[in-house]
Amino acid sequence: MPVRYTPPTPQSLLPVPGVTLGATAARIKNWDRDDVLLVVCDPGTHAAGVFTRNRFCAAPVTVCRRHLAAGGRLRALVVNAGNANAGTGARGIADAETTAAAVASMLACPMPEVLPFSTGVIMEPRPVARLVAALPAARAAQRADGWHAAARSIMTTDTVPKAASRRVAIDGAEITVTGIAKGAGMIHPDMATMLSFMATDAPVSREVLATLVREVADVSFNGATVDGDTSTNDSFVVAATGRAPIAPIARPDDPRLPVLRGAVEAVAVDLAQAIVRDGEGATKFIAIRVEGGRDVDECRAVAFGIAHSPLVKTAFFASDPNLGRIVCAIGNASAPDTDPARVSFWLDDVLVVDRGGRAASYREEDGQRVMKQDEITVRVDLGRGAARATVWTCDFSHEYVSINADYRS
Amino acid sequence: MPVRYTPPTPQSLLPVPGVTLGATAARIKNWDRDDVLLVVCDPGTHAAGVFTRNRFCAAPVTVCRRHLAAGGRLRALVVNAGNANAGTGARGIADAETTAAAVASMLACPMPEVLPFSTGVIMEPRPVARLVAALPAARAAQRADGWHAAARSIMTTDTVPKAASRRVAIDGAEITVTGIAKGAGMIHPDMATMLSFMATDAPVSREVLATLVREVADVSFNGATVDGDTSTNDSFVVAATGRAPIAPIARPDDPRLPVLRGAVEAVAVDLAQAIVRDGEGATKFIAIRVEGGRDVDECRAVAFGIAHSPLVKTAFFASDPNLGRIVCAIGNASAPDTDPARVSFWLDDVLVVDRGGRAASYREEDGQRVMKQDEITVRVDLGRGAARATVWTCDFSHEYVSINADYRS
Repeated sequence: MPVRYTPPTPQSLLPVPGVTLGATAARIKNWDRDDVLLVVCDPGTHAAGVFTRNRFCAAPVTVCRRHLAAGGRLRALVVNAGNANAGTGARGIADAETTAAAVASMLACPMPEVLPFSTGVIMEPRPVARLVAALPAARAAQRADGWHAAARSIMTTDTVPKAASRRVAIDGAEITVTGIAKGAGMIHPDMATMLSFMATDAPVSREVLATLVREVADVSFNGATVDGDTSTNDSFVVAATGRAPIAPIARPDDPRLPVLRGAVEAVAVDLAQAIVRDGEGATKFIAIRVEGGRDVDECRAVAFGIAHSPLVKTAFFASDPNLGRIVCAIGNASAPDTDPARVSFWLDDVLVVDRGGRAASYREEDGQRVMKQDEITVRVDLGRGAARATVWTCDFSHEYVSINADYRS
Repeated sequence: MPVRYTPPTPQSLLPVPGVTLGATAARIKNWDRDDVLLVVCDPGTHAAGVFTRNRFCAAPVTVCRRHLAAGGRLRALVVNAGNANAGTGARGIADAETTAAAVASMLACPMPEVLPFSTGVIMEPRPVARLVAALPAARAAQRADGWHAAARSIMTTDTVPKAASRRVAIDGAEITVTGIAKGAGMIHPDMATMLSFMATDAPVSREVLATLVREVADVSFNGATVDGDTSTNDSFVVAATGRAPIAPIARPDDPRLPVLRGAVEAVAVDLAQAIVRDGEGATKFIAIRVEGGRDVDECRAVAFGIAHSPLVKTAFFASDPNLGRIVCAIGNASAPDTDPARVSFWLDDVLVVDRGGRAASYREEDGQRVMKQDEITVRVDLGRGAARATVWTCDFSHEYVSINADYRS
């Protein structure tokens, strides 16, 4: 069960004018569930995305980048769960292109307007024929209110579907933003095994959309980490259908842009946190806020140093205020010229380390009280600047080992 | 049980002329075992060491660095298990100095010739009075053949004592090198929670010894990692008593130096591997060799990227040839300009990835066969240079989580 996450209901997800979705079962793996999703957007839809920085990026990522570079138009997104089509070399690229081409011919659109996503096991050939054969069924299943079923169809080790909607008013019109995401283990900045697709009916130019996606990813998905591993397939794509009756947002200084960005960011943060709350074996949700840094990079480095320490994560699992492990993680991750005598940290409201040493006011029972919670905030002050960064992670449980020891069986 | 490690017998450890050791029980923690070790060296002994790079280094590390800088002479080493005296601020420094001063007055030597080591729980005040009160008993227990008892007394979560000896002939004289080490979890380059002390009767100048210790650490302890965490206390000190009847080794180009270094390195590699083989919850020992890199740093980065991936480590635990996880780890850790199409890797003798893609010759059952072993070598060829590096790690088991969730209870 995810930590304090209420999965979306079908009713809670707002349709986005210009977008329909349909899922079907193609038996990509030997299971009986929907595992192929086809999202169709109206002609004229713009799209932009950010993708994994893993040097072994998956074939669909390579194809997505190529297709988006070709013009930034989107007619369809085709996603399969159960096989990542990664580490599959030239054949993997051909498979991804075959999939995109099949969708393009079905919709009579240029192939670059189709983006393929894949998630699942790496380095095993993907049953492309079964996938292509399933496309007509996915097409037939298209519905404007298909977001919930879509979120279910892309799950791998996720225990619940992840989706969210926001509505904002721009120029008197109601603008909708709805998104889905999947990802449980291997979540880390640089877009771990995380797939997310969002759509809005706001009219946004390709260039503005590209910047918006990068900015939003940095404060949402790139701050979510379960085990520090980043995957070959991570993709976050936002589509703007332009169906809303307002003038296009085409300039970075358009005063309406912050309103739209706020809605997109709210959905992205919901989804990023949901991924961590549903992290493999997670029993606790931990927010790590690092402040007082010289720059954001050093704050992120310290936050991820804490978030990735197996000793810290097992201590959270055990509700053990073994705070030395956090001190250790800070000491490992902070810049060489960091002065420990200026570093303090808190567990929620409890001051633990006061400028380099155990706080005089600290009592073990206070630490214990906070560690027992299923949601904890670690706040670190580096005492050397004004920069800050936040990351979200979960604890490290027996269940995590079980899930990852058994994943393929 | 450690993976393929035969613990030393008392008989297998060679006394080092000029060194005696004695352990006693001071109840640093609420346990009934030797937890304080006093090592006494003859006057005229030189010493050099390398210590953790953790920014929150422990009080004893600060004091050791200061004392060694004062002249590089060593009369005694005093070690306690059960409390790390780390994150203890000014009081911790005073405690470490009190301990060193008490030993110095007992031996009537300058305080800088005493080095204090501590290992155990972090950020809890250390019962210094009990430690000081136990020193006379440790003094009374001094024996030249006390190495085995010494190795036992410094254990924390170690399941077996770790010690090794080598003997080499230099100028017709028999030179002995004997060392002990402790450390189970939190082992990582930059000297994680790892304490090691070695002694030789070879006469070596302070300067030559300092270089030797750094060179040996880089190819031994700094290549050992259990969970990627590095601790506040790691210390590796080598003492040279000069009791052997040969001319001093005082120049870096002394032809006898490589012979001595070989012996010290052999002992260090034994101990470093023993630490990993006894890693918390380890069921497998994994050697990761990265070749074909532009420089050693990039080879080490990739090797540690593989060694620290929880997904890779749990796959090893499960004997699951989920090789995509290794591909992923390589992709995350390799330099941005790495060309996947030049990267290959092997599991023992099985070629898995051949220049970026799954090897045509690879069969799942071959990967399965190797993964079932309790000792595995992962060899990666980056295909872009001549540099290489090796690290040793272990798998990630349920037991690891249990040990670290329960460590303080």
